[in-house]
Amino acid sequence: MSLRRLKGDSHSISSDEENDQYFPQTYIVIEFNSKIKQETAQWVVDKISKDRKKGGSDLIVRRQPATVGKNLTVHVTSGSQQLLEIAEEMEIRKRDRHGVLREFTMHELEDFINPAEKSELLSSSEKQTIVRHELENIRALNHEICVLGYPEYPLYEGQSILTACLHYGVIKQVYPLHEEEFIRKLGPKWYKQFLSPQPYEDIRIYFGESIALYFQFLGFYTRALVVPMMCGFLQMLMPSSFLPFFCILNIICASMFLEFWRRKCSELAYVWGTISMTSFDEPRANFRGHMGLDTVTGKLLPQAPRFKTHMKMYCVSLPLVVLCMVGAFVVMLMSFWIEDYLRKIPEIPTWIVYGPSVVYAILIYIMNLAYRKFATFLTEWENHRTQSQFDRHRVTKLVLFEFVNNFMSLFYVAFIIRDIELLRYQLAVLLIVLQAINNCQEALFPLIILRYFKQGSKVDSTASKQTKSAKIQLVGVKEINEDDSRLDQAVAEGRMDIYDDPYDDYLELFVQFGYVFLFSAVYPMAAFWAFANNVLEIRSDAFKICRIYQRPMARKVKDIGAWQRSFQAICALSVMTNCALLSTSPSLKAHAPDMSSTMWYLLFVLLEHLLLGARQILHYAIPDKPEWVRIALAKGNYKAKQALKLQRASKSRRKNLSNP
Amino acid sequence: MSLRRLKGDSHSISSDEENDQYFPQTYIVIEFNSKIKQETAQWVVDKISKDRKKGGSDLIVRRQPATVGKNLTVHVTSGSQQLLEIAEEMEIRKRDRHGVLREFTMHELEDFINPAEKSELLSSSEKQTIVRHELENIRALNHEICVLGYPEYPLYEGQSILTACLHYGVIKQVYPLHEEEFIRKLGPKWYKQFLSPQPYEDIRIYFGESIALYFQFLGFYTRALVVPMMCGFLQMLMPSSFLPFFCILNIICASMFLEFWRRKCSELAYVWGTISMTSFDEPRANFRGHMGLDTVTGKLLPQAPRFKTHMKMYCVSLPLVVLCMVGAFVVMLMSFWIEDYLRKIPEIPTWIVYGPSVVYAILIYIMNLAYRKFATFLTEWENHRTQSQFDRHRVTKLVLFEFVNNFMSLFYVAFIIRDIELLRYQLAVLLIVLQAINNCQEALFPLIILRYFKQGSKVDSTASKQTKSAKIQLVGVKEINEDDSRLDQAVAEGRMDIYDDPYDDYLELFVQFGYVFLFSAVYPMAAFWAFANNVLEIRSDAFKICRIYQRPMARKVKDIGAWQRSFQAICALSVMTNCALLSTSPSLKAHAPDMSSTMWYLLFVLLEHLLLGARQILHYAIPDKPEWVRIALAKGNYKAKQALKLQRASKSRRKNLSNP
Repeated sequence: MSLRRLKGDSHSISSDEENDQYFPQTYIVIEFNSKIKQETAQWVVDKISKDRKKGGSDLIVRRQPATVGKNLTVHVTSGSQQLLEIAEEMEIRKRDRHGVLREFTMHELEDFINPAEKSELLSSSEKQTIVRHELENIRALNHEICVLGYPEYPLYEGQSILTACLHYGVIKQVYPLHEEEFIRKLGPKWYKQFLSPQPYEDIRIYFGESIALYFQFLGFYTRALVVPMMCGFLQMLMPSSFLPFFCILNIICASMFLEFWRRKCSELAYVWGTISMTSFDEPRANFRGHMGLDTVTGKLLPQAPRFKTHMKMYCVSLPLVVLCMVGAFVVMLMSFWIEDYLRKIPEIPTWIVYGPSVVYAILIYIMNLAYRKFATFLTEWENHRTQSQFDRHRVTKLVLFEFVNNFMSLFYVAFIIRDIELLRYQLAVLLIVLQAINNCQEALFPLIILRYFKQGSKVDSTASKQTKSAKIQLVGVKEINEDDSRLDQAVAEGRMDIYDDPYDDYLELFVQFGYVFLFSAVYPMAAFWAFANNVLEIRSDAFKICRIYQRPMARKVKDIGAWQRSFQAICALSVMTNCALLSTSPSLKAHAPDMSSTMWYLLFVLLEHLLLGARQILHYAIPDKPEWVRIALAKGNYKAKQALKLQRASKSRRKNLSNP
Repeated sequence: MSLRRLKGDSHSISSDEENDQYFPQTYIVIEFNSKIKQETAQWVVDKISKDRKKGGSDLIVRRQPATVGKNLTVHVTSGSQQLLEIAEEMEIRKRDRHGVLREFTMHELEDFINPAEKSELLSSSEKQTIVRHELENIRALNHEICVLGYPEYPLYEGQSILTACLHYGVIKQVYPLHEEEFIRKLGPKWYKQFLSPQPYEDIRIYFGESIALYFQFLGFYTRALVVPMMCGFLQMLMPSSFLPFFCILNIICASMFLEFWRRKCSELAYVWGTISMTSFDEPRANFRGHMGLDTVTGKLLPQAPRFKTHMKMYCVSLPLVVLCMVGAFVVMLMSFWIEDYLRKIPEIPTWIVYGPSVVYAILIYIMNLAYRKFATFLTEWENHRTQSQFDRHRVTKLVLFEFVNNFMSLFYVAFIIRDIELLRYQLAVLLIVLQAINNCQEALFPLIILRYFKQGSKVDSTASKQTKSAKIQLVGVKEINEDDSRLDQAVAEGRMDIYDDPYDDYLELFVQFGYVFLFSAVYPMAAFWAFANNVLEIRSDAFKICRIYQRPMARKVKDIGAWQRSFQAICALSVMTNCALLSTSPSLKAHAPDMSSTMWYLLFVLLEHLLLGARQILHYAIPDKPEWVRIALAKGNYKAKQALKLQRASKSRRKNLSNP
């Protein structure tokens, strides 16, 4: 294995790559459905290995021997020369020898490779991205109106065939393989350490920008929690008249954290070369549209008018999402009302009184599952052009619903029942017990289950020597050697859970952020518990992504998308809830017994407006991007503009020379 | 005169321009101080006409004959070939034959001139800008430590000599001349019409972007007032229970207007080629710093660290401005208190009771004058790099102060005295009487005074045939023919008032916007009076700028700067004031007599939050730039990036060929 890796990593296009025996590092594994037809499999594999001019992707394909694994599985890879060529086409940005970040071109290969470091130009996640990009870009030609062999699965011209096959279930899954060696090096630096800084650069190289940004955010947020945590401790020691002061401090802390995170985020995006991502970038594989020339780049790409997406969003999705939110809210109210009603009947035993809460918890779980599918379906139907847009609109829909589920019952307790003790108790339970359970559920249990099942699966794979895939003959596709370690790895990782995107992890932080800041006036210890949890969370998330899940597909991002605004909304809301909680606090009112209740409330309305105004001023006063990033971007723009001017000038000079 | 203009306008570089008799159109007139020393005048004039390599600006200078005008006055112009060369250097953007807006270059001259239209490439305002740019870019060399002949006026290396001389009063004024012919054509289309659309493109060509944008804004705002006006009429007919509904409608109208204006503004900026203006553009003439290589462009320009500006802004200016605001507020309170006090003394006659109001009005006037100078001084001292930054920070300071002066007394009447009748009366007076007076003051009075003084001045200029300037001999500078019509024009326009920037006009609209929307709950007719005034204002402003004032210097802008945020702040504030006014309205409370006063107020607090939330959602939902502008910008960026890539690739190919 080490020999293969060494060769795979080298830049020289060795003749070994043409050798039958040799098969470079697997970047993507494709597992077909168990009932796949021979002709369909052959068609897909041909598409992958065919010349690019003929609509293929010109990648190298090997199949797993029929003796390993249940379903027909192929490994996809590419030569390093070809990877570089596609990287140029995809305009992947790399740092050149002078430290300038710019789009890499083949002509200048030497300008980008640092001979001293002997490191590779393309990172592990980039190679994976390139191969996936090529696979997803195999598009249906105009005569291909359905998946070959399945007339019931229609295709339209320009549709991504791989994505369609996945959607129809013809292909069971597509996943990249872990690199054992990298993970072995990463582990001790990351999840086996407890308080050392995270190896962010390695995370990015291996998992890509999207996941690296999540861990950056988690780290940044955890550090930002230190101040509210200190406030919380101080608040416990001080008399209650200091309460408003701490609340204000907490809110300003949260606002500053979000503003500075935006700055940090744009710094990272600049360094990672993703800051110039826009909605005019290459569309995502699932983007539906007729093939046409792109207005911006002039390339042949699927085109669809943006106003249709807007129409769908505002006329259909928005009302439906609101309806779902109202539905969830009504369900919550019902559970409260029924519980209240039951409580009033004297003969009923206690356990029945808690019935509605249990039913509600189960309902929430089911509703969440259903809504998640619904939101994904709606967003897919809206047909957003880029992955970032898609994620942003999907997350927005989900967050709105989760907000109702996670916070509405607390609002009910705080402002309708007005039982502050109950609220404090609930917050404590949610922050201490639920977070601990979550951590276990995320890392500990899967670990145990995995260990148990892994051994079972080993037996399984050796037991069923002859599987269904043996029946399928693929012409022109060689088998991988049976002693290759990748075979067992592919089978084992194929059975792992899929880590789709960091949505669930962000959601956890979002809910926690809400618990900490929305009610900081009544439960000052929240920040401490959140901090303690996050210190653990960093390591357990790291562990789970390295060891429990399939290796996730790398994705480029420039910011945390809809989460930024979601956190900001919670922060703005926390100004209101805290002022409301303060104004209803009897211990605080005791300090001003002579004030009329109207004046008392208006005082807190005033405080709230001042705080909201302060947030707005902070927002304006702290620029999105640090000075150095703005200068660097301006410099890049200026250089590009000069080059364009020069190009035009030389063109017109040539024209003048030819027709004087 | 028509001959001169025709020649000046033609593109062919005729030999006439070298001719002694011929002197092309005057772009800028420089009038020296009456006590100017011979050597200083010679030094300045030499600087202007000297070669650019020797630190001059290579422009053509002629002096006015000593018989015309009081002070030594020179006319500055430039050949059309040179204007084009500087235009290329300044990266002025023009539309080429294919309609693409891009930086013009000399090599591609033919690509930019439309032979069918026979129109000139550079507009009147652009030529003026180019000449002014060259004049302002005459910078002190390292041995020039003071203005020649005035050791008491120090210079630092790289300081703009012309700006310094203006500052020290060595030069009395620098102004462009009006083009009679253009104004004669513009008038009937603009200020002599009453309801036809304004000739925006002509305004821009003649007065430049800054003033064109003001008139665009004025037109847009006036049209936007139609809906609140209609609401106002309807509100008068409906019972008072409909009041909240109209208030909400008004606020949403105002918010939409501001959001759509931002879009409109970015469209205009794109079409005008100013959308890519940034804070990294060439610094303004008054920017102080040591000469150094610019980080972005690599050009030799004055450099000063930005953090110093920030330090000055936040540590000095901000506290001082707040202090001034508090001062103005205290003065206002004092006048109210004294009036109240006087009212309570029974023997005092009525006219003395109004004394404090009169004294307050006079004080406001004086404070305003002093504060304006103070704010300009502070902003200059903060040393902002670009004119846009300077304007933005100056306007912000001024607006904060004006807010206290214009609105605080109304707030006092509305929320402290709670005399709604008085508030309504004051609003009516301010909107009807004061606006009418303003309009007269702006256009009518100056017209009468000008007519009267103009005749006087004619006599004056012919009477004093031998003036002080006769004593000064300028070597190498020819005189303009005595019969040239420009001589009298220069003298007459030199005496006109200076229209510095549209600050006062924007301020008028800002105050009006506040009167209309802040208190729309009590005075629904405000929108009508504002609309009526603005229909007049468009024409009176047009007249005054064409006929009453010196021709203003053209300035490029991409938006209305600090005004956008000022209007937005008023709009947000109007949500609060209207909700507060509604909640204190007895007629509305009569509809819900059973509600406790606390609940009643909380209801309006809720309404206010919903409206503020709606504004935020509108802000997010309406993009800053229309789709087509974003596509066009993305296209430009993409092309530039491709050109840079190509340039780099060909460079490295050449390198590889030379050292294989």
